Amino acid sequence: MSTPLHNELRKEFQLERLILFSDAVFAIAITLLVIEIKIPEIHENVSDKALLHELRELIPKFTGFLISFALIGIYWTIHHRMFGFVTNYTNKLLFLNLLFLCFVALMPFSTGFYSEYAGPELFREQLKVPLTFYVLNFCCVGFANYLMWLHVTNPKNKVADPPIDPVTANTSKLRSFIVPFIFLLMLPVAYLTNVLFAVWMPMLIPVSLKLLQRSMKKKYKPVS
Amino acid sequence: MSTPLHNELRKEFQLERLILFSDAVFAIAITLLVIEIKIPEIHENVSDKALLHELRELIPKFTGFLISFALIGIYWTIHHRMFGFVTNYTNKLLFLNLLFLCFVALMPFSTGFYSEYAGPELFREQLKVPLTFYVLNFCCVGFANYLMWLHVTNPKNKVADPPIDPVTANTSKLRSFIVPFIFLLMLPVAYLTNVLFAVWMPMLIPVSLKLLQRSMKKKYKPVS
Amino acid sequence: MSTPLHNELRKEFQLERLILFSDAVFAIAITLLVIEIKIPEIHENVSDKALLHELRELIPKFTGFLISFALIGIYWTIHHRMFGFVTNYTNKLLFLNLLFLCFVALMPFSTGFYSEYAGPELFREQLKVPLTFYVLNFCCVGFANYLMWLHVTNPKNKVADPPIDPVTANTSKLRSFIVPFIFLLMLPVAYLTNVLFAVWMPMLIPVSLKLLQRSMKKKYKPVS
Amino acid sequence: MSTPLHNELRKEFQLERLILFSDAVFAIAITLLVIEIKIPEIHENVSDKALLHELRELIPKFTGFLISFALIGIYWTIHHRMFGFVTNYTNKLLFLNLLFLCFVALMPFSTGFYSEYAGPELFREQLKVPLTFYVLNFCCVGFANYLMWLHVTNPKNKVADPPIDPVTANTSKLRSFIVPFIFLLMLPVAYLTNVLFAVWMPMLIPVSLKLLQRSMKKKYKPVS
Repeated sequence: MSTPLHNELRKEFQLERLILFSDAVFAIAITLLVIEIKIPEIHENVSDKALLHELRELIPKFTGFLISFALIGIYWTIHHRMFGFVTNYTNKLLFLNLLFLCFVALMPFSTGFYSEYAGPELFREQLKVPLTFYVLNFCCVGFANYLMWLHVTNPKNKVADPPIDPVTANTSKLRSFIVPFIFLLMLPVAYLTNVLFAVWMPMLIPVSLKLLQRSMKKKYKPVS
Repeated sequence: MSTPLHNELRKEFQLERLILFSDAVFAIAITLLVIEIKIPEIHENVSDKALLHELRELIPKFTGFLISFALIGIYWTIHHRMFGFVTNYTNKLLFLNLLFLCFVALMPFSTGFYSEYAGPELFREQLKVPLTFYVLNFCCVGFANYLMWLHVTNPKNKVADPPIDPVTANTSKLRSFIVPFIFLLMLPVAYLTNVLFAVWMPMLIPVSLKLLQRSMKKKYKPVS
Repeated sequence: MSTPLHNELRKEFQLERLILFSDAVFAIAITLLVIEIKIPEIHENVSDKALLHELRELIPKFTGFLISFALIGIYWTIHHRMFGFVTNYTNKLLFLNLLFLCFVALMPFSTGFYSEYAGPELFREQLKVPLTFYVLNFCCVGFANYLMWLHVTNPKNKVADPPIDPVTANTSKLRSFIVPFIFLLMLPVAYLTNVLFAVWMPMLIPVSLKLLQRSMKKKYKPVS
Repeated sequence: MSTPLHNELRKEFQLERLILFSDAVFAIAITLLVIEIKIPEIHENVSDKALLHELRELIPKFTGFLISFALIGIYWTIHHRMFGFVTNYTNKLLFLNLLFLCFVALMPFSTGFYSEYAGPELFREQLKVPLTFYVLNFCCVGFANYLMWLHVTNPKNKVADPPIDPVTANTSKLRSFIVPFIFLLMLPVAYLTNVLFAVWMPMLIPVSLKLLQRSMKKKYKPVS
């Protein structure tokens, strides 16, 4: 079904289009996060004290907005880096990218749902459902990203030309696996011990990424 | 009204702009789908059990989100493939594209409306109105896409240079006609037999596309 | 404040960026139109008859969606055609473009407001406020577009190189003035006679544009 | 981690992608502003008088929309000008840009919150919380922009090639600092004197920018 028309330049623009479409979905998802923060409405006896009280009630919403903004922002950066290597596309890459974007597009809902019940009741009632939903949504984003790295770094698929060097390929794959994996570990911790412990686990991610980077450096000594 | 300024390069950028505008509409429509999934609000006696119950009520909404995300995603892929051939644009193409996008932009409403009444009541009450609305909206997307293929594959319109080869042209036209046609068949099935049967009919699409591909291959033996 | 860095290529990308930003605003405004069509919610005794009744109530909303989609689509096409001539940008063009986009961004609100009260009560109560608001918003879009044409077609501003030929320039300016002007005439008609007459006046636009085109052709005989 | 693949052209497209992603966030934030203006709903005794009354109640909302549209528009113009110099990107620039966009994305909420309580009650009750929230959000936008200028104009970071000349660099830095600083001064004025005075302070910005420009011109006499 390929014609001579599908030449190099056109392929390049087609790839650009895939990338810019993804960027638009990222941009909309990241901006829609704010829609779930409803403006406090006080109809009687408006006062600074009442408004401040309402804003304080919104703190979990703002925290959720910031965390999800950071996470989507990080995944946009990763997508940006990944497609810095990609010079070609396959139908499978198109499909994996759509799957990835589908979970990104769900993030505003998950964030809104989680942060709706992330007030004091979260720990008092040990609510696990919103946390589970949020964690699973984010893990889907992460694992879809992992599948994309697997596809992109595999030289057989010829999506990166020249092929990605093994060190970068392995680091990227491992890294994209570790992040959702640690998030997933939040669930047994929340169910078996206390939701309070689970909530702080993402803090482990930077530490483990540092450790990973160090062990990779030892394994593959840089030439330059 | 054409001046020497409208030269080749500029025409190319004008075409790119048409494409990127379409991508933006696609991206927004696909991301707005999630807005129709309202976050469950429980104000008293919040508990995991109550939240899980609320989430279960949302299952039709999630299903609707996934189906429409897939459908819009597929039509984005088709649009992407179609404009891989297009090297020029006409006022009619601009108009057909806007018509197509208009129906794409309506999909979040149709999806929300259909999935609002796609719970157990759908089969109990044999509700046909939301299904009809959704099917008609999607058929409009499909047939507008078919009209675009008719316009693009017609060598007289000179929008593709070199012209699209007849095999690809005919397959694309047939395929873009069959998909909305099968969807349209859901309506007589729903009205004459049972809504339950209609709902599963889209499953026939991959089968019929396979059959189409086989018969096309027989008809036009590939040279290479 | 201009440095040698601001060379030709960079200027071109800066111009592209202005265009693509405008496209994004257009795309979002055109897709947000659908948000104002609220999904009918029936909580008890759901039936096809009740749903059909609710859909019928939404007809003004759908009509409003279609009209505004068409109007924004047309202005996107005009913007597309205008920037087909533009090869440079000035601070004033940036400002006029933002002003234009500001009124485009208001269209979802105006459309929602007008179509909320465009049911049978529109003629029974001779409601003029929603119509006036909608007409004024649209006229602002139209006149801002007219100001942009004035700026772009003026050779002194050097935004189009080679300058736009006088025939195209004059037609574009006249055309972009006539459309909002006819819309504005809806107001005296609505206030002095009957809202019913005003609502149909936009039908005059294609007729007057045809007449304009004919008179322009007589005035400037084409050379080719 | 840099491979030979990351060549000049690719870097350029990667930079374009960063810019177009930012544009999309800008475009969405600027268009979402309108969502906070809720359409007045009158269910009984609809009349022009009642609708006009409802519209009058919305005046603070429209004012808020216009002010925030102008502010986001201005910051888009500044971002546009800044990236007119940028030819390279660093991880820090990516991060600062995301931080900047995060605060831009919050603007629809802040605008909605401020304008919800910007009716007559603002001065009667001397409400300071919505104003403080809005001012702080806008200052974050401004100071994040200032940090970006610091990074971009620093020749060590090699993001602009050729480096930005000192006059432009210093003017840009000072200007991007002064605007949020004057906004920040609204807070002591509002708390110590009267909210009424604070509200008009942004009027000082054009004056102080004029003064700045004059003093810069004296300091660095232009060569040409």
